[in-house]
Amino acid sequence: MSSRQAITGIRSRVFRVPLEEPMQDARHGLQTYFELVTAEIETADGQSGLGYTYTIGTGGHATKAMIDHDLAPMLIGHDADDIDTLYDEMQSRLHYVGRGGIASFAISAIDIALWDLRGLRQNLPLWKMAGGAGKSPLTYRGGVDLNYPIEKLVQSVGGYLDQGYRAIKIKIGKPDLAEDVARLRAVRDRIGPSNKLMVDGNFGYDLDRAMAAGKAFEPFDLTWFEEPMEPDDFAGYGELAKATRVPLAMGENLHTLQEFKHAFEHSSLSFIQPDASNCGGVTGFLRVAKLAEPLGIPVCSHGMQELHVSLVPAVPNAGWLEVHAFQIDRYTLRPLVVVDGRAVAPDEPGSGVRFDWAALEALPIA
Amino acid sequence: MSSRQAITGIRSRVFRVPLEEPMQDARHGLQTYFELVTAEIETADGQSGLGYTYTIGTGGHATKAMIDHDLAPMLIGHDADDIDTLYDEMQSRLHYVGRGGIASFAISAIDIALWDLRGLRQNLPLWKMAGGAGKSPLTYRGGVDLNYPIEKLVQSVGGYLDQGYRAIKIKIGKPDLAEDVARLRAVRDRIGPSNKLMVDGNFGYDLDRAMAAGKAFEPFDLTWFEEPMEPDDFAGYGELAKATRVPLAMGENLHTLQEFKHAFEHSSLSFIQPDASNCGGVTGFLRVAKLAEPLGIPVCSHGMQELHVSLVPAVPNAGWLEVHAFQIDRYTLRPLVVVDGRAVAPDEPGSGVRFDWAALEALPIA
Ligand SMILES: [Mg+2]
Ligand SMILES: [Mg+2]
Repeated sequence: MSSRQAITGIRSRVFRVPLEEPMQDARHGLQTYFELVTAEIETADGQSGLGYTYTIGTGGHATKAMIDHDLAPMLIGHDADDIDTLYDEMQSRLHYVGRGGIASFAISAIDIALWDLRGLRQNLPLWKMAGGAGKSPLTYRGGVDLNYPIEKLVQSVGGYLDQGYRAIKIKIGKPDLAEDVARLRAVRDRIGPSNKLMVDGNFGYDLDRAMAAGKAFEPFDLTWFEEPMEPDDFAGYGELAKATRVPLAMGENLHTLQEFKHAFEHSSLSFIQPDASNCGGVTGFLRVAKLAEPLGIPVCSHGMQELHVSLVPAVPNAGWLEVHAFQIDRYTLRPLVVVDGRAVAPDEPGSGVRFDWAALEALPIA
Repeated sequence: MSSRQAITGIRSRVFRVPLEEPMQDARHGLQTYFELVTAEIETADGQSGLGYTYTIGTGGHATKAMIDHDLAPMLIGHDADDIDTLYDEMQSRLHYVGRGGIASFAISAIDIALWDLRGLRQNLPLWKMAGGAGKSPLTYRGGVDLNYPIEKLVQSVGGYLDQGYRAIKIKIGKPDLAEDVARLRAVRDRIGPSNKLMVDGNFGYDLDRAMAAGKAFEPFDLTWFEEPMEPDDFAGYGELAKATRVPLAMGENLHTLQEFKHAFEHSSLSFIQPDASNCGGVTGFLRVAKLAEPLGIPVCSHGMQELHVSLVPAVPNAGWLEVHAFQIDRYTLRPLVVVDGRAVAPDEPGSGVRFDWAALEALPIA
């Protein structure tokens, strides 16, 4: 081991980031903030790598506690560039309290910091380290808009087109399916036939209702029907895929490679949507992409667009980059720019994500 | 809601409990302590319920953080006796960072405290609240003894017989299968043909090695072969069951009802082994038992014998109570008594588990 790369310290912080306006989907109630957990790793040569994860409102402090009490003690002294080894050791050490959940969030934050350090040291941007297949992903805007009246929904998707998006996702899952269909019709009318449209059910349906919804959505030429049912009902997705022609997508709630394997085996997905903030960081994301590649399944993303912009296009089976409604852009130094439906990965060495610490520190204490 | 039962406060603590001697299994390295996380719930009428969970060395502080930051704020003010509703709300609120992992440990501790409160209020012991089918489970002693030389192993199982056990489990998973077979032969010789013998692989094998092991173990009349492979390799267990005659058991690493469903569907288990400390407390354990009942699968347990002694015998499909090597007895007020292979559930109202706080508080700070 090169002692210059030895990990000497890890600093973690939790921020509670307010949303500009409350958001709602089918299952998570009204959200008014998200939690950002940051992990800064220092090495003996004075280099500092930045990692992070986020939650939709709970678990941030538990993630920080796991970084501080369980991961930092095992990592300090080890070579920061042994990423695969450290990754497997973290998974193994946390297995009893892990296989997903908070362990996946904590490992993700650490792993992203290790990749940031590698990029800084090797003078390489993340999109090159992650495979280098491309740097300009197809991008869609994902709204969290189930609480919007239909007029506001239509206005909001119109705004996305104005911002350069050519693909848009809306939330569905109203108690009355006819209401979802009406909203979908209005949105499709607004964006026209050439722009892409996706819907996200946030596991609000059971299989019967998902089948009815999938059929009712067929006229709207959807690119995908996201997470209609509980994410771990792997066989249910397979049955749904047989019963409807709408392509299925999920992944934001799968936290272990084994869960992705189950999904690939049983769920007949047309797209996979790992989230590097909760499936094991860059390492976890790339392992999922590798599993999907021989199956011909495009790899999309969930949330965290400022990081995924470097991961999604970098793999050979690149899918769509989600631009999520959480306004993380306000707290990063490099706002995502979307031109004619595509975003561009940063060329700076490392992860390409730097926070505006002053803005974060000005937030109320989490 | 009766305001007398309203939750007014939750106090959580983490203790690091040293083991009398280091223990080793196939995958968790040498263990020298375990973590105990306690949760005391107070209600408006001044009643106090005690819940807890434990880990094998990591995650205790994350569990406490989740109780303090995520669960306590949502529970305070609610009726402590609405256990099913609160349980489902906790699962739902933690879903994004959950479906297992730390969320399952934190929910377990809270749920056990709520059942304790119910028992105290209704003047009922846990074994009656949990179904009341019985109160005296078949019991086996589980050793964590992979690091013992063979002479010490034989001596140790002999000691278990002297303590009243009529069923014994040893760890297996030596690099050389022949060594496991030699240990097994020596143990079977020592305990004779009438006492029961189980082995625990702690997911140290892949499918090929598990098949070889299962076949090599056939002469020893094993009651079960526990956790030969990764617990989420559900289909692998099914293949193993087809290839060998040794009955399979697992469950200590399954943390959600959905995972148990996958196991029941794909893994051809002869026994299921939920652990109320990590599968959702009493509520989680009983939901697993209910799933197993129509399948004719006996419900056993993992660890936490001081609580499981009231759960295992209470359900119609009662299996075996594990008496685990973690010496929690030293810190409880009611040591487990085993007579001729059976233990007896306490008749005191509530969970029947009370800690010796002075002894716990005398431990070094976690
Ligand atoms: Mg989604
Ligand atoms: Mg075991």
